[in-house]
Amino acid sequence: MSRFDVLTIGNALVDVLSFADDDFVARTGVEPGAMTMVDAARSDEIYAEMGPATETSGGSAANTASGVASFGGRAAYIGRVSDDTFGKVFSHDLRSVGVHFEVSPATTGAPTGRCLVIVTPDAQRTMYTFLGAGAELDETYIDEALVASSAVTYLEGYAWDPPPAKQAVRRAAAIAHRADRRVALTLSDPFCVERHRDEFLELIERDVDILFANEHEITMLYEVDTFDEALHRVRGHCEMAALTRGAHGSVIVAGEDVHVIDAQPVAVVDTTGAGDLYAAGFLYGLTHGYELATCGRLASLGAAEAISHLGPRPVEVLASLARPVVGG
Amino acid sequence: MSRFDVLTIGNALVDVLSFADDDFVARTGVEPGAMTMVDAARSDEIYAEMGPATETSGGSAANTASGVASFGGRAAYIGRVSDDTFGKVFSHDLRSVGVHFEVSPATTGAPTGRCLVIVTPDAQRTMYTFLGAGAELDETYIDEALVASSAVTYLEGYAWDPPPAKQAVRRAAAIAHRADRRVALTLSDPFCVERHRDEFLELIERDVDILFANEHEITMLYEVDTFDEALHRVRGHCEMAALTRGAHGSVIVAGEDVHVIDAQPVAVVDTTGAGDLYAAGFLYGLTHGYELATCGRLASLGAAEAISHLGPRPVEVLASLARPVVGG
Repeated sequence: MSRFDVLTIGNALVDVLSFADDDFVARTGVEPGAMTMVDAARSDEIYAEMGPATETSGGSAANTASGVASFGGRAAYIGRVSDDTFGKVFSHDLRSVGVHFEVSPATTGAPTGRCLVIVTPDAQRTMYTFLGAGAELDETYIDEALVASSAVTYLEGYAWDPPPAKQAVRRAAAIAHRADRRVALTLSDPFCVERHRDEFLELIERDVDILFANEHEITMLYEVDTFDEALHRVRGHCEMAALTRGAHGSVIVAGEDVHVIDAQPVAVVDTTGAGDLYAAGFLYGLTHGYELATCGRLASLGAAEAISHLGPRPVEVLASLARPVVGG
Repeated sequence: MSRFDVLTIGNALVDVLSFADDDFVARTGVEPGAMTMVDAARSDEIYAEMGPATETSGGSAANTASGVASFGGRAAYIGRVSDDTFGKVFSHDLRSVGVHFEVSPATTGAPTGRCLVIVTPDAQRTMYTFLGAGAELDETYIDEALVASSAVTYLEGYAWDPPPAKQAVRRAAAIAHRADRRVALTLSDPFCVERHRDEFLELIERDVDILFANEHEITMLYEVDTFDEALHRVRGHCEMAALTRGAHGSVIVAGEDVHVIDAQPVAVVDTTGAGDLYAAGFLYGLTHGYELATCGRLASLGAAEAISHLGPRPVEVLASLARPVVGG
């Protein structure tokens, strides 16, 4: 018996969201639609150029924990914040939905991390992340008992960027497997895949039971041209993979078992958090004994909720939205 | 010639917005739909009970300044923030839309004020305001040259709650009139009217050229039962009044001139900021020489934009929405 369904580990961030046009993104010189790491000074510079913004808790893995809780699952989170306003906001927002988050905020060092998110008229988000306190997440933050008592430990690819965080999530994966638990990984971002391809390939081979990736990320990982080629590569590589294709839905592959899942039709406002809540729905389903096709439908439902409003976390109670899918 | 179309003065606040049910509001023991002042400890208590929230700059008068700027007007703001995260967020959000806000943040004393906003399923907002740094706004903050160079100085009724702020806005009204400028007042909230009725009645008689109030506030002010009675009372009392009635639209009365303006039909998400952006549209119109009926239509357009999304400030560029009304 596990104490938690899903433990997620990643970069703790407050999102600073604002609408802007494509020119804004072009002027900053980054890849549109991607996540770029920036330092404090560059973050301040971009913020000064941004229009009025909304602040809301983010961080990919934390969004997933929040989503699992909203579906009615037992979720926990490990990430590093500072003892400041954004750290308090981040902690409040996780705890208030019932996510177990008991990491003490740091009282020295960098402030809580922030992610400037520019949403362009096509509903794409371009992100400029200042990791702040999150950059110092290290092995000491990995609570062994917590990992060992969680059915799934979910890691974000972004955690491979700061070296101490990489050691931390690798340790978490080892603990999970020793306790006979499952390890999930999201590839996070195509550029993140490019930065860490070899390590990800080896990690998936050895340590990942459930892989989440979008089309761009998975083709980037295997350096192939088509989704179908990537699908065939991942099949022999990982026990289970959930591959998303935006409006074209997703494909779930687990050995011989393959499911093609439609996206939920929805008016797209902001894609921030779509992948995070897709993973939340899938893992909620998996840890509650639903068959893979149902897990896929719950995942699509989570993604649809995320993209229907500004911000990466559910506004609606996902457990209510899930009733037509799972009954009850 | 004025340097600014509209200068607004009021309590600088960051809104902490969350959806909750009516029971949440009932448990806190406040009047649903109203604004209640709370101290720091009570604010923290209520925040701890709240669900996940979104932080966005607020403060009634600041929202109006932001709205005027979004319509394309020249707006300025006076309010008091602290040199902290919320103070920086507040300042950024005003300046980024072009509002002139050059008040130095306080480096000692209380933190920047916050307003916890609970949005219930009927789209009504109930507000718990911790004034923080805003409580110490006093006469020294009133920049005489700024007031004298603004066509309209707009005051919020909420400023009557902290005594030093009341002296400050009274001084601003006196300066504006000496410079042959106009003074506008919003009654802010029915309970605010109840707290300051006699002072408001005297102020409207002597110092207010343009009065904004909703139906509840204006009937509370004159202690009458019907909107129509209040309408007749205000007619002889104030040069110009714009009285709002929610979905029933608004009535503008200026001596013999009376206009009945329809509300813009819109899906109501959150009424926070509706009155503030109504005032923004009206004052933008008035300071740009439009006739009263057009000012009313611009006002309705501002209110409709505010209630169509979570948060009190415009998400769309109001100048673009206004094109069908004013041409161009």
